[in-house]
This record gives sequence, C-alpha cells and structure tokens, in this order.
Amino acid sequence: MLVIGNEILSGRTRDANAYFLAGRLTELGIRLREVRVVPDVEATIIAAVNALRATYDYVFTSGGIGPTHDDITADCIAKAFGVGIDVQPEARRRLEAHYEAGMLNEARLRMARIPDGATLIDNPVSTAPGFRIGNVHVMAGVPAIFQAMVASLAPGLTGGAPLLSRTVIAQVPEGTVAADLGSLQQQYPDVDMGSYPAFRGGKASTAIVLRSTDRARLDAATEAMYAIFRRFGGEPTENEIV
Amino acid sequence: MLVIGNEILSGRTRDANAYFLAGRLTELGIRLREVRVVPDVEATIIAAVNALRATYDYVFTSGGIGPTHDDITADCIAKAFGVGIDVQPEARRRLEAHYEAGMLNEARLRMARIPDGATLIDNPVSTAPGFRIGNVHVMAGVPAIFQAMVASLAPGLTGGAPLLSRTVIAQVPEGTVAADLGSLQQQYPDVDMGSYPAFRGGKASTAIVLRSTDRARLDAATEAMYAIFRRFGGEPTENEIV
Repeated sequence: MLVIGNEILSGRTRDANAYFLAGRLTELGIRLREVRVVPDVEATIIAAVNALRATYDYVFTSGGIGPTHDDITADCIAKAFGVGIDVQPEARRRLEAHYEAGMLNEARLRMARIPDGATLIDNPVSTAPGFRIGNVHVMAGVPAIFQAMVASLAPGLTGGAPLLSRTVIAQVPEGTVAADLGSLQQQYPDVDMGSYPAFRGGKASTAIVLRSTDRARLDAATEAMYAIFRRFGGEPTENEIV
Repeated sequence: MLVIGNEILSGRTRDANAYFLAGRLTELGIRLREVRVVPDVEATIIAAVNALRATYDYVFTSGGIGPTHDDITADCIAKAFGVGIDVQPEARRRLEAHYEAGMLNEARLRMARIPDGATLIDNPVSTAPGFRIGNVHVMAGVPAIFQAMVASLAPGLTGGAPLLSRTVIAQVPEGTVAADLGSLQQQYPDVDMGSYPAFRGGKASTAIVLRSTDRARLDAATEAMYAIFRRFGGEPTENEIV
C-alpha cells in the first residue's frame, strides 16, 4: 500500500487507511506485505508506485485525487505507467450528475482526469471516482471515501486461503516464555507465532498471536501455548481480535 | 522511518509510533520524508534499512528488539551494516541490574545483543536499550518505550529552522476555492499549502494548512486565504494543530 500525503508525514493527521486496509485484506485472505507513506512530491510518488507494482500482486494507494493543486496522484500514476491522462467521459458524466449547475468548475473537473486505459472505482460518498490501472488501485485519502472504495473493489480481488488466527494472553513476561515459544515455533513451522508484550497496571503480560491456514495445526499449537503459560503460573485467556 | 512488525500489516495493531515520531520531528525542525512498514522478514528488513539509510539524514526504526524468536531487528541491522553482533557488556550490565537474580535467562539476554560499533539508546521504561549505528536509530515497538527512547535521543538530533504552521478552516467545499488556492500557492512558493476536505453533519468544509519557516510570509499568505474563504461566503476559523 502507498499512502500519499504531507499531512501524514508532518504529524497533522494520523493515517487511518493503512490500518483499515490491513484488516480488510486479512479478512479477504490477502497478505499486506508493505506500507509506504510518501509526501506530495512527483518523483517520489512515481518511484514508489513503480517499485511496489513490480514487487507485489496488488498495490493500493490513498490520497491526492481531489481538486486542488496538491492533488497530483493521478498525474503521477499516468507518468509511472507511461500513459496519457485526460478528462474521461464517464467520470465527467458522474461529476455533472452530482454537482448543481455551475458548480462543476475547472478545479473540480480535474477529478475526472483519469490515466488512459484505467477503469473507474465507484465513490458512493462524493462521486469523484478512484481508478484501477494494471495492478494499482488509486483511492481517496478521506477515510470514509477510502473505505467505500475498498468495499466496491473488494469483490474483484483474488485472495488465498484465509489466514486463521488465535491470540493467547497471560500475565507472564515474554522473556519468561521466550525459550519455550521458540521451541514451539520450530515444532510448528506452518504456524506463524508473534509475541507482543504489554505492561498494564505495573504487571507484564504477553499476547501470543498464532496464525495458520490449517485449523487443526493452529488449534494444536494454541493448546501447547496454553500449557507453556500454565507452566509459568499464568492463566491464559483468549482474545478473538482479527 | 521504518516500522517493523507483522502485527501492523495484519491489522491486529494500529501503529502509533509513526504518528508520534512525525509530530516530534516536526517540532524539532526535522522533516519526516518517508515511512515504511515491513514484516518480520530478514531480507526485507535489511533491504529497507539500506535503502532508507542511503537516502535520508536520519533513519528511525520501531519494533523487533525484544526477547522472542520473532525479534530479529538487531541481527538484521548488523547484517545491513556488515558488522558483527554479540552481547554488549554495558547492555548486559543494565539488564543484570534490572532483573532479579535468576530472571535474566538466555532469551532476555538476547536483548543485550548489540551490533559492533553501535551506541546505546536509554530505555527508562523497561531497561533493555535501543541503539544507534551510523544514522540509524533502533527502538522498541511498544509505544511507551518508543516514546521514551525518542525523548532520550531527541537532544542529539540536528534540526533545521522549525517549520511554522497555520491551519485555516471554513465551511466552503475545497473545489470552490481550488482555483484561487492554486493562484495563492503560485504567489507564495515559499509557503507550502495543503488542502484537506472534510464532511461533517452533511456539510463540506476545507482545512488549508500553510507552512513556512518565514513567519511574515506565512502570516501574509494566511490573511490572503482568509480573504478567499470570505469571498465564497465562508467564515474562517483557525485551528492550532501542530
């Protein structure tokens, strides 16, 4: 995923789209492998789009497709693909239907500029569409619009077997279970195990996230993790996040 | 900045460290230019560290320096720099002072493994240190620890002139002011102007963020932006975020 916008890098805005997309892709059986946040700088955006689209099956971008001078994403995508860009008739028609007479000024019409060969992504919130070109999906930065665009393109994405997940938590410090957890990981190379420490009310606790596409193996590894926590005096609980 | 961790990419955890660092760096007069989020995969981490440290003055990482098998950041950094890594005496001494007798097991001692030539970054929360090697600052992923580490290294960073910022907001759609805003940007190339639309209670509003190191130019451009909003019937207010 590529997040485009100075406001994220300056600390003015906390990005919400990467977190949303990460959760949705996991549900769809697609693994998000990298997120980059870059500023509104043409050369940087073009280089990042080309690096990501060459590396991954799908690329998703957010930000920079509005009507103002700092909205340069669509032009950057066209340059990254080496294609032309102009007002696209269908995108223009949608904007004309949306805006009252006289309101579709030149600036707003910029939102109908779509790279040649791209297909539109619906925007049920504020009409101005995103677009898909090659494996790159270009969407708005405003979270409500980004989420609606993801919803409209999700049925067209091809996911793998969903990654199943269980999260076991106990009031045992992670350094205490680290050696046994490492051995467990070696026994279950097909179950990905992550360890996340937390400190609440002065007490150390550890959340172990186990992930696999195989439910039987996942359940067996989870039972073994319960036993490890109990060996160190912790009473594990389970949290069904994700 | 490089955020390391499967939990962010799976959507289990919403990253908080990039947002925190972005705000702190802006205060210090340092511009954050890129954030990458990568999984706990050695080759990916090494490639990202080497790309970022060659491109930027400073690199900051978060995540992957705990005691468990999935904490591979320190080893990846050593490989990225082509140096050795071993238990460092001062880091070991700190951990020995922190843990009760018998609690400093082999797994926890991994947290004292520091690449050759690195200097330690203090961790007032849970002792296990971060480290700096070359222009790369390696810190913990737990937000409270990450923030404490940033506080301890901030005095040693060299910032430029602080970027001053004003944010003008009005209930005018951004497409309405886009053309005048574009002209204003051309008149003030030394003032960076970003436009951020919002939709609240069915009404469209626009926040214009103006940034410059020159207060007089910033104030003049801000006054001009007030005038533009008023011309379209909006009563601007100002928000002192960042």
